Amino acid sequence: MAHDDTHADTAAPDLLLGRIRDIPDFPRPGILFKDITPLLNDRTALAATVAGLAAPFRDAGVDHVVGLEARGFIFGAPVALELGAGFVPARKAGKLPASVIDQPYDLEYGTATVEIHADAITEGSRVLIVDDVLATGGTGRAAVDLVRKAGGTVVGFSVLMELTALHGREKLSDVEPHALLSV
Amino acid sequence: MAHDDTHADTAAPDLLLGRIRDIPDFPRPGILFKDITPLLNDRTALAATVAGLAAPFRDAGVDHVVGLEARGFIFGAPVALELGAGFVPARKAGKLPASVIDQPYDLEYGTATVEIHADAITEGSRVLIVDDVLATGGTGRAAVDLVRKAGGTVVGFSVLMELTALHGREKLSDVEPHALLSV
Repeated sequence: MAHDDTHADTAAPDLLLGRIRDIPDFPRPGILFKDITPLLNDRTALAATVAGLAAPFRDAGVDHVVGLEARGFIFGAPVALELGAGFVPARKAGKLPASVIDQPYDLEYGTATVEIHADAITEGSRVLIVDDVLATGGTGRAAVDLVRKAGGTVVGFSVLMELTALHGREKLSDVEPHALLSV
Repeated sequence: MAHDDTHADTAAPDLLLGRIRDIPDFPRPGILFKDITPLLNDRTALAATVAGLAAPFRDAGVDHVVGLEARGFIFGAPVALELGAGFVPARKAGKLPASVIDQPYDLEYGTATVEIHADAITEGSRVLIVDDVLATGGTGRAAVDLVRKAGGTVVGFSVLMELTALHGREKLSDVEPHALLSV
């Protein structure tokens, strides 16, 4: 398949998949972790990923790209630059210094919270959310709800990789996530 | 001063400084925190920052850009793309899934550790380290030592903002940090 390193409309799936490695028992016994660091380390795969994450949203009038801490920062900032949008970090509780709005979500054991600055997204802003992986969809769902609570319109949810066995897409059916890879 | 949004050799300092705000008493009473999120949220300032961080290293043959968790990821990945280099996340202890090499450093109270994957940087690789702020230089010093321990050559250390009162530059005199702003 012909592709261009930086402006492909679709990233070549084999190129990307070949740069993701399985790490058994991380972060806990029984979990097979998908490690994307070899992809980040390959300039061609990195550029293709950013181009692929941005491609469906080039004409969507994106004002802000929200990236989810921490790996979502790695893709979110370049996607924002690619789309000519501002970048908004969505962080874990207590990391942002000014007034925040927050959204709690359930973890396997307990709850967590995702936050953005209260003034980061203005009423009517068009927002693309970017992350590395769509797993159970808990964080993603919280991010979508958070952006809407701030007055933004979610125009898309773009991830490198969807772990289909975890059914996160069902929690995000209203935003129809865009995934470069499904594993 | 004339400048181009994405390929300026130097970012316009006033544009960037005007997008950084002071937050008193964060993360602790008595600390005046420099919040860069307004800069990230401004697409012109974000593009100028990335261009300015990369500019001195365009002809340095950079193989890898190391970004320091978490705000260093936001600038590090786009700088890697700009320079045609791979991106290597340097993370806090326990976050990276495969074999790591690590470097401890002192905090005000206690110690912390920065890690990269053991296979991320190969012998002789030319490495640019990127972060948002140079403060006391503790993390930066650890990152430089870590890259060298991995066999890499540090060709530069590039930050948006240097807090001169904290004298971090003295700890990094061997790499002569490049800072877009000194405050």
